[in-house]
Amino acid sequence: MSGEFGRIDRYFKPLAAGFPGARGLADDAAVFSIPDGQELVVTTDAMVAGIHFLPDDPPDDIAAKLLRVNLSDLAAMGARPYAYTLMTSLPRSLGEDWLAAFAAGLAADGRDFAIALSGGDSVSTSGPITLCVTAFGLVQAGTALPRSGGRPGDDLYVTGTIGDAALGLGLVLGRFELADNAISSVLIGRLRRPDPRVSVGCQLGGLANACLDVSDGLIADLGHLAHESGCAAVIDAVRLPFSAAASVVIATSSQRFEEAITGGDDYELVFSAPAGAALQLSEIARQTGVAITRIGQLTAGQAGHVTLLDSVGAAMTLSRRGWDHF
Amino acid sequence: MSGEFGRIDRYFKPLAAGFPGARGLADDAAVFSIPDGQELVVTTDAMVAGIHFLPDDPPDDIAAKLLRVNLSDLAAMGARPYAYTLMTSLPRSLGEDWLAAFAAGLAADGRDFAIALSGGDSVSTSGPITLCVTAFGLVQAGTALPRSGGRPGDDLYVTGTIGDAALGLGLVLGRFELADNAISSVLIGRLRRPDPRVSVGCQLGGLANACLDVSDGLIADLGHLAHESGCAAVIDAVRLPFSAAASVVIATSSQRFEEAITGGDDYELVFSAPAGAALQLSEIARQTGVAITRIGQLTAGQAGHVTLLDSVGAAMTLSRRGWDHF
Repeated sequence: MSGEFGRIDRYFKPLAAGFPGARGLADDAAVFSIPDGQELVVTTDAMVAGIHFLPDDPPDDIAAKLLRVNLSDLAAMGARPYAYTLMTSLPRSLGEDWLAAFAAGLAADGRDFAIALSGGDSVSTSGPITLCVTAFGLVQAGTALPRSGGRPGDDLYVTGTIGDAALGLGLVLGRFELADNAISSVLIGRLRRPDPRVSVGCQLGGLANACLDVSDGLIADLGHLAHESGCAAVIDAVRLPFSAAASVVIATSSQRFEEAITGGDDYELVFSAPAGAALQLSEIARQTGVAITRIGQLTAGQAGHVTLLDSVGAAMTLSRRGWDHF
Repeated sequence: MSGEFGRIDRYFKPLAAGFPGARGLADDAAVFSIPDGQELVVTTDAMVAGIHFLPDDPPDDIAAKLLRVNLSDLAAMGARPYAYTLMTSLPRSLGEDWLAAFAAGLAADGRDFAIALSGGDSVSTSGPITLCVTAFGLVQAGTALPRSGGRPGDDLYVTGTIGDAALGLGLVLGRFELADNAISSVLIGRLRRPDPRVSVGCQLGGLANACLDVSDGLIADLGHLAHESGCAAVIDAVRLPFSAAASVVIATSSQRFEEAITGGDDYELVFSAPAGAALQLSEIARQTGVAITRIGQLTAGQAGHVTLLDSVGAAMTLSRRGWDHF
């Protein structure tokens, strides 16, 4: 087999093996049988070379990021991974080696996150590599987490650590340099391979009121959650969870601190929960090994307004709020 | 509102109105509640400017084609339209007028085919316009039509007419010319706005054994159906349904005839059914107003081999079989 059908056989059919709904990628479409009492969560994220990743990034890193940004959306809805469709629009010059490494990246993450390929489309382009995944997850009916369910008095939490990817991007783009290669490598690694909080997210149904994942920067995304919930948000800078690597960088520069909390690409979960949830959240953190940190509260103020308090409780001013895609 | 969020509000939220699963495009993902006893059919088709359409085609035609090629896949599975997600990767130079006309095209077809937007992603690109839709349909559980269900002795049918779009492409590319503008306009119209056979497709469950839609050309796609069904196919050239417009062109040139049956982009359904289905198929054709023509049979020959017989029953030779995307 040659051409499109040969590529499907070699690289894509193995990714669909074991998922009956994919029908071996032999039909015009996949067929999903959703178990009774469950709902299907559907999200779409695209990435373009030169914008969302660098054209010469390792293909398996690109594959991992593509899947993981989608898995992060599923986690933000409280869903567990089910299947995904893949659109690849690739320059003809790219060659089989690239595709083989890309498919290997998808295969590795497909195993790690228990998500199978269900179908897709492959086209060629005169432009940059363009990739799109539509990912599917399952939730118990009625338990998908909205952005809009937060209430004044809810505690605000964030998973993992904030700012690593934004600082990693600063390093990649040469905005600043670090003498310590180990630290650089941690930060750039978090940019290229985000850790979608699937294990936490799928336990938040019935516990969190509102949730989203941080892609546009902590402050901007907190603003989205607060806005949709009709609340303001107040967070304490001293409570923000930074990795050891990010802490080293932030300690030297307030500009780096701002980049960390507004830069985006974190793919951590931000959610609100009533005070009574604290104990169960500690247990989820312990069991998953993912930190869950309380960073502030929703309040009855202006919808969508985010106040960042410094260590003595004074409001801090930021020079930018986050990243708009257009 | 400006930037991505403004565009979502202006152009995309209206396309999602009335579909609760879209959650007003306000959350990280959509949530589908699949009715008991039904399954979800999922298909993905992408289009790139310069390959699948011309960059200066009218934006509403591009929108219509994007949706319709996906609707055609749903029809080929016997599914009725449910919802779709949209990925747009657009050059920054494109401007609001283009997006407004594109969204208007989606809105018109969304109404005509009863399919709502459920979510998506918008990115910008330094390359050509790249668009991807993942479309969802519903079928009664167990009735989705495979490609592989055909049996020797089944009749082979095709909906509508074959070759219009391929001849329309020939005209657009200047491969040949026609004195009659009305004929040109019909053929080019079928290229830009295929007629997905949704009304026929969603009645074929339990009637057809195997089905697909013709995108790569009648001969190639018949070959796919026959191959997956483990059969050969024999079709009669004189039975092939051509529109009046295509007949005029084909009458003048055997090369045009070949282009019509191998050129692709027809988006008609090809399916196999046992002889007993003929009467019900006539009734479906009458009720939908879409021609359903018996063009040949599946046989016990070499899997995937397609024989085209001329008017005296002799096998014809084609110089090409169809179009491979890569």
